[in-house]
Amino acid sequence: MSLIFRRGIANMASLKKASKVVCIGRNYADHVTELNNQRPKQPFFFLKPPSSILLKGDGPVIRPKGVDLHYEVELALIMGKTVKNLEASDEKGALDAIESYALSIDMTARNAQNEAKKKGLPWDIAKGFDTFLPISDIIPKSDIPDPHKVDIYLTVNNEHRQADSTELMLFQIPRMISDISKVMTLEKGDIILTGTPKGVGPVVPGDVMRAGLKVGGKELEAAKIEVA
Amino acid sequence: MSLIFRRGIANMASLKKASKVVCIGRNYADHVTELNNQRPKQPFFFLKPPSSILLKGDGPVIRPKGVDLHYEVELALIMGKTVKNLEASDEKGALDAIESYALSIDMTARNAQNEAKKKGLPWDIAKGFDTFLPISDIIPKSDIPDPHKVDIYLTVNNEHRQADSTELMLFQIPRMISDISKVMTLEKGDIILTGTPKGVGPVVPGDVMRAGLKVGGKELEAAKIEVA
Ligand SMILES: [Mg+2]
Ligand SMILES: [Mg+2]
Ligand SMILES: [Mg+2]
Repeated sequence: MSLIFRRGIANMASLKKASKVVCIGRNYADHVTELNNQRPKQPFFFLKPPSSILLKGDGPVIRPKGVDLHYEVELALIMGKTVKNLEASDEKGALDAIESYALSIDMTARNAQNEAKKKGLPWDIAKGFDTFLPISDIIPKSDIPDPHKVDIYLTVNNEHRQADSTELMLFQIPRMISDISKVMTLEKGDIILTGTPKGVGPVVPGDVMRAGLKVGGKELEAAKIEVA
Repeated sequence: MSLIFRRGIANMASLKKASKVVCIGRNYADHVTELNNQRPKQPFFFLKPPSSILLKGDGPVIRPKGVDLHYEVELALIMGKTVKNLEASDEKGALDAIESYALSIDMTARNAQNEAKKKGLPWDIAKGFDTFLPISDIIPKSDIPDPHKVDIYLTVNNEHRQADSTELMLFQIPRMISDISKVMTLEKGDIILTGTPKGVGPVVPGDVMRAGLKVGGKELEAAKIEVA
């Protein structure tokens, strides 16, 4: 038991050593609509700095002054190998390159992001504050037989806010990994956030977010996030 | 000699292990004007993935199909310690946190960036392709007594394109480090690109970029970049 325990801890800390965190935007149709955005013709993505990762038990999400803070629950992929120029048709190659999964919350300074969008400025500040990436324990790959058949949810103060299946993704995982890998070589340990379903919204100080993931209706313990 | 040589190599390779690369935008007035941009009221910044770093001798910059590729020569800071919530007035704290310098070229897919700006999309693809960050050898800190009094230049096929003093920065280094550190904790090994002076422009296959840095009119060997 203690060996497993220690190995688990080591893995979690290793998440913060990711050389990059790549996030897919607008990957669920109803979420695109709720923010009055245009549906993308191809996946687009942005970076969050590894310094934004908030491990379990590492305290609350910091709310910078003047920030309208939104949650976005997302399935995260943790890469197990180097991937470069993968073809989108290579589904096996894509899935083989995944080492494990995690659940994550892509915290977003929505007002800063909206201002950046209006001015044509980068999103990296709005997405990149310290603590803006709460992440669960690592989910062993074998616990998720099909990453496109997983239910992810998020509650705020125990009220349901997000709950959808990853089968609703506009671009599936092989296409994402392919498109990213044609721009940026993916390295072992890199983290990919696969986009958020509908229901995003604000949290204020005192709110408690809980997020989780179900496979075949069964909740995975490792995927649970509880963060203030 | 061989010890120094080996230490130098180790340092260069360590650049690719940076946990993040943070880049300041629009930090020289004449460059803001040449791209018809608005002068920022405060520093803004974006990320490049460490996978975009191109070390000396690691081959040419890749020109992705359909990309209008632009160079931007920039002084790079390499951080020597963790910095969080630094006050802009703490000039000593800012300069003490710098471990060394490098010269760098912030390669940019200008057409992709212009489209992203128009659509309010992130810049990370336009800035983040593999090889889009050619970087020089590490410049020991003692070789640059004042980072705001350095001449940086870039030539294409031996024609002068960029040549200006870092004294023209709109926001100086303590302000940059302060603003970044209030969003993202800076970690040892992180790289900050301090913005580019006027004269940016396209390169096509076959063009050779050479960049360098002068202190008191004297060229620093370590800062030289030559890349196709
Ligand atoms: Mg998101
Ligand atoms: Mg690293
Ligand atoms: Mg630049």
